[in-house]
Amino acid sequence: MALELSQDVVALTAALVDIESVSRNEGRIVDEIDAALRALDHLEVTRLGNSLVARTRLGRPERVVVAGHVDTVPVNANLPARNDGTLLHGLGSCDMKGGVAVALKLAAGVPEPERDVTYVFYECEEVEATENGLRKIAEARPDLLEADFAILMEPSDGVVEAGCQGTLRVDVSVRGERAHSARAWRGVNAIHRAVDVLARLNDYEPRRPVIDGLEYHEGLNAVLVNGGVATNVLPDLCTVTVNYRFAPDRSEEQALAFVRGFFEGYEVEVTDTSPGALPGLGLPAAKAFIDAVGGIVNPKFGWTDVARFTELGIPAVNYGPGDPMLAHKQEEHVPLAQLTGCEQTLRRWLGAF
Amino acid sequence: MALELSQDVVALTAALVDIESVSRNEGRIVDEIDAALRALDHLEVTRLGNSLVARTRLGRPERVVVAGHVDTVPVNANLPARNDGTLLHGLGSCDMKGGVAVALKLAAGVPEPERDVTYVFYECEEVEATENGLRKIAEARPDLLEADFAILMEPSDGVVEAGCQGTLRVDVSVRGERAHSARAWRGVNAIHRAVDVLARLNDYEPRRPVIDGLEYHEGLNAVLVNGGVATNVLPDLCTVTVNYRFAPDRSEEQALAFVRGFFEGYEVEVTDTSPGALPGLGLPAAKAFIDAVGGIVNPKFGWTDVARFTELGIPAVNYGPGDPMLAHKQEEHVPLAQLTGCEQTLRRWLGAF
Repeated sequence: MALELSQDVVALTAALVDIESVSRNEGRIVDEIDAALRALDHLEVTRLGNSLVARTRLGRPERVVVAGHVDTVPVNANLPARNDGTLLHGLGSCDMKGGVAVALKLAAGVPEPERDVTYVFYECEEVEATENGLRKIAEARPDLLEADFAILMEPSDGVVEAGCQGTLRVDVSVRGERAHSARAWRGVNAIHRAVDVLARLNDYEPRRPVIDGLEYHEGLNAVLVNGGVATNVLPDLCTVTVNYRFAPDRSEEQALAFVRGFFEGYEVEVTDTSPGALPGLGLPAAKAFIDAVGGIVNPKFGWTDVARFTELGIPAVNYGPGDPMLAHKQEEHVPLAQLTGCEQTLRRWLGAF
Repeated sequence: MALELSQDVVALTAALVDIESVSRNEGRIVDEIDAALRALDHLEVTRLGNSLVARTRLGRPERVVVAGHVDTVPVNANLPARNDGTLLHGLGSCDMKGGVAVALKLAAGVPEPERDVTYVFYECEEVEATENGLRKIAEARPDLLEADFAILMEPSDGVVEAGCQGTLRVDVSVRGERAHSARAWRGVNAIHRAVDVLARLNDYEPRRPVIDGLEYHEGLNAVLVNGGVATNVLPDLCTVTVNYRFAPDRSEEQALAFVRGFFEGYEVEVTDTSPGALPGLGLPAAKAFIDAVGGIVNPKFGWTDVARFTELGIPAVNYGPGDPMLAHKQEEHVPLAQLTGCEQTLRRWLGAF
């Protein structure tokens, strides 16, 4: 069955929400999008796994990517979609089937854009990076992603969010020596020793560098703590899991060097790392887009796949309907006005009125 | 089948070790002890569940309890028993089938003790207090435990350990406010706030009161710490589980009041509490025993069932073969010389030479 792309963007978002597509279960939604896009003569469609690339071939001097992931976090009693007249509620409405619906409306409704467009609809963004559909396309067919600029339609409240902060996660281990808790003086309490790690975190002063006029805001936070063997044993290990969100003027290597220095004297093991992305607002393709959408740009604090485009050498921004703070929440929703507003803005940018 | 009580105390300990009796699986070992004791005309045997009480009825002016639990912690590749000529190795050899073997040798071999004796062999000491066999006897048939003095044959390296410290366990909760870890300034990190709880613990000065000439040594220790929601979320809760070991001059109520005061400003929830036991060395029955075993007495830091006898109004001490620091260890063992030494000392005390 092919998705009906002639319905308005609100109805199309609702239809996408109603096709359950939790990560690793994107087969059906991608089949329906695939069938709908292949029916359009002006697009060349390529499928890799459960990801799709659909390209115009108009020979324009500039090519842009418009991308969105089709998977969602797990169902949480928030299906099917519900339209209350102002907001569309339901799993994925915000993150990010609203953005996917806008992209599909453009793909179908703007057959001759001023700029050539590469639409990307991809799987497995909400799970481990190795499964990520955009990453798989970049590895298997980097030619399909060649472009001058990319828009990732992640929720950004309909305002451009440029760049993104990197993220590094480490386990900081504090050691002690076991003993029976009735004879504590025979051991060394690893949980008590962790006071120094927490004191350093409390003393941390976040960097707030300004890059391309945008003020970033770093963060260094314990996100998990675990220690202890049994309730009558002095613990010999306490592990503090720390997440460092770093501004995009630091590389992953610089971020790790900072964290190792910060926790000098303790074992520091890296468990996850992703680079940030510079906003790149000085690049001509980015400038043109920002002018078209009204000139307002905010920094992106969270990590998104814009960093992946940056690694490919493609300037990229986040721009999409929905409040990013609602992503992954049971009550996520998207304002109907943002859906139609984003669609109109991007139609104008592509030269269709 | 009845246990053979005529074999020497070392062989009897090995035979007891080889009857696997992890807590809640004491049926077979108690059946064998039961059959052996019922064959002895000088004992009146009562069974409650998998616990046994065997009493002489000689009308002596004084009655003493000799008690031991027959269960062990779980098997840990430490069966069957192995005698290396100096040490007997194996699960329960130290905690506390050596002590049980000594008690059985006395029960069978000293038919006319100078003091009437109540032997108690009980189940489920190594699990939650509600299952404890000694507790169940005390509740159902307190008359069976009436006595002037009690010896609990827990491992104490063949030296009298008097009294025991109490133990209190509480969860100390530190609250915060969730936020995405990329926007940490919107929340309050509960793990970071726990620095104050750990700082207080590091500043703790243990009381070391002297009672009946014995110096106790208190302890206040974090034994578990847990906090965190997910690796990209600022945590709103960090729980520090704290174990307070308190000298027996403090009641459970006083201990709790101290801990609540110590952690003032935080939620404190009690998860476990057991009172200590005063050494009671001034009592005539205790004095006579201590003289008989050579006069050396140490304080008991860990909690044992002597506290239960104290609650019943019966002065009690720990005295048994085996190093208490080996209890619950994979490599537990008992020196052969302590088995024979304890047996001889107690035989003398009961007037048999």
